[in-house]
Amino acid sequence: MSGALTLPSWSTAVLAEVEAELERLLPPAAQAPAHLHGAMRYAVLLGGKRVRPLLAFAAGELLEAPRARLARAGCAVELIHAYSLVHDDMPCMDNDVLRRGKPTVHVAWGEATALLVGDALQSLAFDALGQPGLADDAAVQLSMVRLLAVASGSAGMAGGQAIDLDSVGKRLTREQLETMHRAKTGALLRAAILLGAACGSGSVEAQPALERYAAAIGLAFQVVDDILDVETDSAVLGKTAGKDAEQDKPTYVSILGLDTSKALARDLHGEALAALAPFGQRALRLRQLADFIVARKF
Amino acid sequence: MSGALTLPSWSTAVLAEVEAELERLLPPAAQAPAHLHGAMRYAVLLGGKRVRPLLAFAAGELLEAPRARLARAGCAVELIHAYSLVHDDMPCMDNDVLRRGKPTVHVAWGEATALLVGDALQSLAFDALGQPGLADDAAVQLSMVRLLAVASGSAGMAGGQAIDLDSVGKRLTREQLETMHRAKTGALLRAAILLGAACGSGSVEAQPALERYAAAIGLAFQVVDDILDVETDSAVLGKTAGKDAEQDKPTYVSILGLDTSKALARDLHGEALAALAPFGQRALRLRQLADFIVARKF
Repeated sequence: MSGALTLPSWSTAVLAEVEAELERLLPPAAQAPAHLHGAMRYAVLLGGKRVRPLLAFAAGELLEAPRARLARAGCAVELIHAYSLVHDDMPCMDNDVLRRGKPTVHVAWGEATALLVGDALQSLAFDALGQPGLADDAAVQLSMVRLLAVASGSAGMAGGQAIDLDSVGKRLTREQLETMHRAKTGALLRAAILLGAACGSGSVEAQPALERYAAAIGLAFQVVDDILDVETDSAVLGKTAGKDAEQDKPTYVSILGLDTSKALARDLHGEALAALAPFGQRALRLRQLADFIVARKF
Repeated sequence: MSGALTLPSWSTAVLAEVEAELERLLPPAAQAPAHLHGAMRYAVLLGGKRVRPLLAFAAGELLEAPRARLARAGCAVELIHAYSLVHDDMPCMDNDVLRRGKPTVHVAWGEATALLVGDALQSLAFDALGQPGLADDAAVQLSMVRLLAVASGSAGMAGGQAIDLDSVGKRLTREQLETMHRAKTGALLRAAILLGAACGSGSVEAQPALERYAAAIGLAFQVVDDILDVETDSAVLGKTAGKDAEQDKPTYVSILGLDTSKALARDLHGEALAALAPFGQRALRLRQLADFIVARKF
């Protein structure tokens, strides 16, 4: 039945569940410490494409996972993503004042609070993933905790951000750039997909194909981001455009040029679709999300 | 047999296991991203009293927990503690340049790296707690993950830090100060004790007494810290002394005065020992740690 929906209709339904779950997970703004809780809600609830929860739902639906599980697993990943944006925007990192068209957390709530918001959102992600009932087997759920921890840490997102910092002003090879992005963005997108799958049954069998899909869309996502950064203005982007070039950060566009970057995004898109072939029609949503990730801009 | 050891001998043996486990959990300094991994090791391996792992071992030995489990659970808590020190020392928070007699992480490795070090250490704590084998039942281990997440987040340590930030320059009541410290320091000490207990058997029955013990030593720890801050000089303390008064932060000493603060520490010590009475001789280490926490300075 859900197969009959278009992607926008499906996304709207999923996002309603995701927002309700985030609302449930985040402490009320009136609860002490109110300043921190208000800032946490500001950081998480004011928009975003929610690509990671959508991926978790798409992978979970492939394996017939209960939707309540997918909402929680998807939100755990989204909380990690949200914390990383808050910390990345801080003055000692990217020093960005605009995010989704609004003042960044440290601008709106103060720098010390932004630091704590990120810290507390990371804890909340593991709180969410630790609440019982995400998998039939508690041992499987424990492995889900570890999967998110590794994806978030020095071998994943935080490590990728560290490589990014070190790369400012340097000329990276395409391989080095890929290594950075596989960690910085790819690890968490992969986690979203695999956590969604782990909420269902048969995830072990599906994993090789899902890994291949995740690797392709993870890179495609970043290539597209780099293209967007040079082709879109700040008003449309909802964040400060052209920052990468201004900060002398290596990007796919700076290394490969715009045309080759676009061709690469299309190749990766094709690779993602090829990985899904064994699943047939069941992979409709993952296929549509691959389309969305590549098509969202050019 | 271990009951025959003095506290220093017992601690030395425990700390050797804790340091070995931290060494195992932390990625090698040569592994990419090397700058981040070097800074993570600097933050964690260069000392500290390791009070939280010692508490985990003491509570675990009470319930005959395997020592390898205690090392891992204790280190998970220590990693959270270590991350919090790195972030608390940053310029936007306490702006401290000295910790354990050495330059703080942001001074030695840069501010952006310090931010990532804290973030990655938090992830590593949940990675450690998610690795299988900490409890006979995976569902119990999952509840351990959640216990640490709640203790670290906005209802625990990060929340206490937020209250601390808001309290600068304000006159708090004793009750407000206690609320702050129960979250800021007490939650993680409690987690260390309960996680150690959860590694053994019979932790459900023991929990009420351990909760009472944890509440008493958690506050005693902070009262003693406040006394130390005014009575000790920086060289002995290994961090900048007198910061609280200088930053106009409310402390037990500023609210109750020095003598009443010392009497309070002694009362809390007595309460901790009373809580342990039902355990008899098995609680030797927890009793000795209560002595140590109160006696470490005055």
